Amino acid sequence: MNGYLIPKATLGRLPQYLEYLKSLSESHSTISATAIAKGLSLGEVQVRKDLAAVSGAGKPRIGYEREKLIEDIERHLGYERLTNAVLVGAGKLGKALLDFDGFEEYGVKIIAGFDCNEQIIKTSHSATEILPIKQLEQYCKAHDVKLGIITVGQGSAQEVCDALVASGIRAIWNFAPCSLKVPTGVLLGQENLALSLAHLNNQISK
Amino acid sequence: MNGYLIPKATLGRLPQYLEYLKSLSESHSTISATAIAKGLSLGEVQVRKDLAAVSGAGKPRIGYEREKLIEDIERHLGYERLTNAVLVGAGKLGKALLDFDGFEEYGVKIIAGFDCNEQIIKTSHSATEILPIKQLEQYCKAHDVKLGIITVGQGSAQEVCDALVASGIRAIWNFAPCSLKVPTGVLLGQENLALSLAHLNNQISK
Repeated sequence: MNGYLIPKATLGRLPQYLEYLKSLSESHSTISATAIAKGLSLGEVQVRKDLAAVSGAGKPRIGYEREKLIEDIERHLGYERLTNAVLVGAGKLGKALLDFDGFEEYGVKIIAGFDCNEQIIKTSHSATEILPIKQLEQYCKAHDVKLGIITVGQGSAQEVCDALVASGIRAIWNFAPCSLKVPTGVLLGQENLALSLAHLNNQISK
Repeated sequence: MNGYLIPKATLGRLPQYLEYLKSLSESHSTISATAIAKGLSLGEVQVRKDLAAVSGAGKPRIGYEREKLIEDIERHLGYERLTNAVLVGAGKLGKALLDFDGFEEYGVKIIAGFDCNEQIIKTSHSATEILPIKQLEQYCKAHDVKLGIITVGQGSAQEVCDALVASGIRAIWNFAPCSLKVPTGVLLGQENLALSLAHLNNQISK
């Protein structure tokens, strides 16, 4: 990693670039920003900006070396080493996230879910194991878990957050509809599922 | 509605303002931006900006009239008349969204889910009914449905999108990891659940 933070929107397009570059035949050793933009129906300026953030500028009249570009994108997406994540709260949303297979594309693997409900733990059919919450700290430390996802209700979210922090988590992605307090050094991402829908609704209601 | 589009971030804070304003006793007929900012741990400039977008500026030394502010926020959140939405694809994520109770807070109600799998339709325990996909168009037209949510796989997302458009939907919220084509006049919101997690990961990997 180069210490430079990639804009979120650019990050979101990286898997698209990767897929496209990999789909080209081996004969394409180089490719221009123009061709990539056309292939993905994106603006050329945007493509140049995105790729500059992860791999530097293309060469005039030649473009980017395909192999190097693929390597650079994969490195920025964390493909060299997936980050381990755990999820706490295996209700419907939690289970849906545990079964969602799009995270590895972005360098993150949810390796376990946790819940306090014995029934959920016993009857889970998820591919990812669901463990009792009391094992959280030990598990996270043993598996070098860096990311924690909170999908419990508002009432227990802060408690779960504290437990994740005590387990050595470095960033938390919170789906509970409440603000959480985390110590300095721990990142907090607040998810608001309703907001995107609200935004669409707001636009069509004008 | 006033024809002016509220920024998404402001929209996201409106339910917070609303809850706070409603929690105050009746004796607070007016309230200052300073007090609201303090009560919600927000910046005062942000509060003034947010409230200006929905209700105009407060009066010097007096602030905002609480009742009017509540009314204005509720109107912008669409509380006067909830927008009807349907969801297509009642898999794990779809069911989690059908059971999510946070949408009404933003003026949207998912009134039905649709699926092509008869088994899912029969065995659903969701509070919201799940209907056969062949009833989609008729249902949407009968219930004045304006928003469609797509939670099917990549393979059938465009087909579902076309069916929603044919049903008179005005905006689509797509969870399938693919770009969809919609005619002019139909809004498309693309959701990428992995992206927020990827962004957190990217920040802690530096």
